[in-house]
Amino acid sequence: MKYSQLLIPTVKEDPAEAEVVSHKLMIRAGYIRKVASGTYTYLVLGLRSLRKAMEIVRQEMNAAGAQEILMPSLQPMELWERTGRKQDYGPTMFDVPDRHGRHNALSPTAEEVCTTLVAAEVSSYKQLPINLYQISAKFRDEFRPRFGVLRSREFMMKDAYSFDATVEGLEASYRKMYDAYSRICKRCGLPYVAVEAESGPIGGSASHEFMVPCSAGEDVIVHTEDYSYAANLERAEIDPPPPCEGLAAKRQAVGTPQEVATPGVGSIEAVCGFLGTRPQEMIKTLIYSAGDQPVAALVRGDHEVNENKLSRAAGLGPLALAGEGMIQKVSGAAVGFAGPVGLAGKVARLVVDPSVAAMVAGVTGANRTDFHVRNIVPGRDFPLEGESVVVADIRNAVEGDLHRGRKLVFSRGIEVGHVFKLGTKYSEALGAKFSDEHGVEKPCLMGCYGIGTNRLVAAAVETGFDDKGIVMPVSLAPFEVEVIPLSDRDEQVVRESGRIYDELAAAGVEVLLDDRDARPGVKFNDADLIGIPVRVVVGQRGIKEGKVEVKRRTDEKATEVPLAEAAANVIAIVSELKAKLQP
Amino acid sequence: MKYSQLLIPTVKEDPAEAEVVSHKLMIRAGYIRKVASGTYTYLVLGLRSLRKAMEIVRQEMNAAGAQEILMPSLQPMELWERTGRKQDYGPTMFDVPDRHGRHNALSPTAEEVCTTLVAAEVSSYKQLPINLYQISAKFRDEFRPRFGVLRSREFMMKDAYSFDATVEGLEASYRKMYDAYSRICKRCGLPYVAVEAESGPIGGSASHEFMVPCSAGEDVIVHTEDYSYAANLERAEIDPPPPCEGLAAKRQAVGTPQEVATPGVGSIEAVCGFLGTRPQEMIKTLIYSAGDQPVAALVRGDHEVNENKLSRAAGLGPLALAGEGMIQKVSGAAVGFAGPVGLAGKVARLVVDPSVAAMVAGVTGANRTDFHVRNIVPGRDFPLEGESVVVADIRNAVEGDLHRGRKLVFSRGIEVGHVFKLGTKYSEALGAKFSDEHGVEKPCLMGCYGIGTNRLVAAAVETGFDDKGIVMPVSLAPFEVEVIPLSDRDEQVVRESGRIYDELAAAGVEVLLDDRDARPGVKFNDADLIGIPVRVVVGQRGIKEGKVEVKRRTDEKATEVPLAEAAANVIAIVSELKAKLQP
Repeated sequence: MKYSQLLIPTVKEDPAEAEVVSHKLMIRAGYIRKVASGTYTYLVLGLRSLRKAMEIVRQEMNAAGAQEILMPSLQPMELWERTGRKQDYGPTMFDVPDRHGRHNALSPTAEEVCTTLVAAEVSSYKQLPINLYQISAKFRDEFRPRFGVLRSREFMMKDAYSFDATVEGLEASYRKMYDAYSRICKRCGLPYVAVEAESGPIGGSASHEFMVPCSAGEDVIVHTEDYSYAANLERAEIDPPPPCEGLAAKRQAVGTPQEVATPGVGSIEAVCGFLGTRPQEMIKTLIYSAGDQPVAALVRGDHEVNENKLSRAAGLGPLALAGEGMIQKVSGAAVGFAGPVGLAGKVARLVVDPSVAAMVAGVTGANRTDFHVRNIVPGRDFPLEGESVVVADIRNAVEGDLHRGRKLVFSRGIEVGHVFKLGTKYSEALGAKFSDEHGVEKPCLMGCYGIGTNRLVAAAVETGFDDKGIVMPVSLAPFEVEVIPLSDRDEQVVRESGRIYDELAAAGVEVLLDDRDARPGVKFNDADLIGIPVRVVVGQRGIKEGKVEVKRRTDEKATEVPLAEAAANVIAIVSELKAKLQP
Repeated sequence: MKYSQLLIPTVKEDPAEAEVVSHKLMIRAGYIRKVASGTYTYLVLGLRSLRKAMEIVRQEMNAAGAQEILMPSLQPMELWERTGRKQDYGPTMFDVPDRHGRHNALSPTAEEVCTTLVAAEVSSYKQLPINLYQISAKFRDEFRPRFGVLRSREFMMKDAYSFDATVEGLEASYRKMYDAYSRICKRCGLPYVAVEAESGPIGGSASHEFMVPCSAGEDVIVHTEDYSYAANLERAEIDPPPPCEGLAAKRQAVGTPQEVATPGVGSIEAVCGFLGTRPQEMIKTLIYSAGDQPVAALVRGDHEVNENKLSRAAGLGPLALAGEGMIQKVSGAAVGFAGPVGLAGKVARLVVDPSVAAMVAGVTGANRTDFHVRNIVPGRDFPLEGESVVVADIRNAVEGDLHRGRKLVFSRGIEVGHVFKLGTKYSEALGAKFSDEHGVEKPCLMGCYGIGTNRLVAAAVETGFDDKGIVMPVSLAPFEVEVIPLSDRDEQVVRESGRIYDELAAAGVEVLLDDRDARPGVKFNDADLIGIPVRVVVGQRGIKEGKVEVKRRTDEKATEVPLAEAAANVIAIVSELKAKLQP
């Protein structure tokens, strides 16, 4: 296509409100324009990239046996009420009233509609497995949309839903999607990590997030240096601390518990300031409730309880922080003064983090309002074993923790995709059942699989740029090649540029001809800014010498290529760039 | 692809609520499923057809020089207030409040967002013309959604917006879109008529509707038998009635006006019943207001005023039916008793339809409450010429009317597309201006062009079906060919079916293999129902004779083809079917 006939409004200055590279560069390169907070128009270049990402996703979904359908964005709110997700989403889901007073969700995902479809159309195990996907706009009323198309209120997402008859089937469906997502990331030229993740509010039992490590990422990846293990903060499993040398002796040297008055001083920080202790010397005692059963969790003062881990360790179902009443009843003191001494008999579970279990002694609440207590020795002053006592990893990882002996480090990442095993949450709520070989009716086992196609594009920019602009992978670049004539008047230059352009186009290369009446510097700068992988420069002097200049976006310098071989040379480079992205 | 691996839930019975063929058959053939009133999920087959329609539209838009972009569906309501379209759309536009209390339109079209984009990015005539389009979901809160995907609340539309510097430029842009729409309809295998139309609430000065004539259509097409002239009801121009022989003599024979008491009898029907006259003998007198200026319109009792025509004829700007006060002031009588006698001096315009001007005499209101008057002779009892008197076509056409001497007939049609010259309505309201060659700032001249891609598919079904199901044009068919093995167990049958399938797929034919464990009759019925253009039947007996059966969906009988030539034969048929749809 010809540059002069396209709307490519490049901009020199970074937009003021843009905080991250992809946002800045996608605006500057004329890929996108803001319409309102969190909504963007994709201009010609941006849409070409987005459509390429969508097509890669489509191809991989089809190859994995998923079937493309298209569900409406307007979805009866009643379905979302039946699964409880109206409440889960809260104000993040747009609620659209219609003229008849009915409410509609503006689809943030489509489990409800897809499961309802399968409930109506599938009745036998013979029809399973089935995996249905769509690529369509999704909507989330973010409290604070930001980072351009990375966190917007309207975005393009591929969402797939698998339905299986057996756990093994679900595992196979999940694995297919996992592999497809790996291929998609590779084909999009994205460095990625499949991060173990809790499944969060969407429900279910196992999941992976596909993360692209980069500084603009909003998510934390907890991983070993070589990424052989990677998990999100919710999920990352950590080794217990190494046994402390001479622990027993050290503990014996500790004196008896000593109450100290800490009037009105309840938080870890406040107590440390008041008593001159360090957070890692404190035992933080938190009371949770599992229904009406109290659960006490002990972590070091410098650690944070991970509620998912705690919930699994306690084994009493979902937990929430206990209310003031339960805390007072269990600890006999005001909130802020609970401690482990004497607590084991008063709670359904006392769950002790290994970092606490390994302490020589600690400072903790005295179970008496306005008092803390020093010299509390684990195993002496509170039990580390017994019927209702569990020692288990119940905290978030911190940098420096170990996983199977290897140090964990933290990185930031952009979540581009997410695969979930959902189990039967939706199939039970919405009646997606099948008869098995014996005629027994069972709910389908579901998985769901989302990938943000706009995030694929933004992540490619976040991981591919330099001070001149975007360095787009050939698979997502709006054009693969740009031909730049150094003059739009010199007949030879125009003719040869046109010839190379025609040859490339005829060979199926996606080529842009910068036919503008503009200075070479402007053309070079724009070509670099918009991130075209290969450029061909055609000038008067070169033509005299029978040569043109060919340069990859990532090359420092251009290579001179015989005029007659220009197209063939460029075609070879494009093939080579594409080959590198083959999974 | 293999039938057994696709969700194609065909249904034998017509769905109860479906009123039109496309709705019934798209449900029965497993193309679509209803989610809620006016919202549908496109299943595998339906989406394949829809995506083919979208791709044809995309190709023709690109070939016509339009550039594809993608605007958000959520659009600031403030933009719609600035153009007055929030009010124009009223409850038909979804209003989505967000968590910060701001209001968003759920885009029914995108003039506002597109014009705002161009206002920001275009400043010089050198950047014009520009034509931007998108293919995306659109939303209308229809009072009564119906006819399946023909009138739904969420649908896929291509909308394009052209911006020009000159009237000639706009004309050229409009013509390109008109031609592209003609090609799209042809490629989709649709019989179509480009119907002259008023531009309606979207504003502007000239437009055509692309209509597919069929009984399910919601719109009326007024046309000559050969369709050389076609217009919608709002627009259709009609010849004045032929001069009545001996009119002057007949009028002289009419007696003087005679008042008759018609107490409480105001409507045409009531007066006719009361006086024993026929509607075509009545002169209907309607009072309109153009601002505060009264306008009287005279049409025959059996005709309807066309407000667009009246407004143009009166030349006083937009008109509305006058309120009771103005009617009483002008006629001196209660509503229902106005008549033309003596009215010319009291209104800004007296507009007389030619059918009235041609009457010998008529019955009309007496400008006196509860009285009508007989023997009113046009030209004698009220003027047909004079400063404020206009004789002009101001009524809707009726069947039998003539246009340039040829009889007009009425047909029903589905509007699949619409091209508009908008003028400067939006560019003025939203500041889309450019500097011309002399540095003078002017608003862009706009056109807008919409095509309902889902309607293309539904219209193809409405015009292509028989008692067995859908007869899909090859360009929109979900698959071009279906291979039907008569057994899924006979080794030879399975092998030969697979071979033909592979050969067709390798040649780029979109082929479906019905590999189900089902009776031949079931396979034949489903193939017919889902509308695959060509089918190949592979059976044991045929293989023994070295033959397979090939049949177009439209053929009465299958043709026997040598086994070895099966694929080549089918490829030739597909090419032939495609060639027929080339514009």
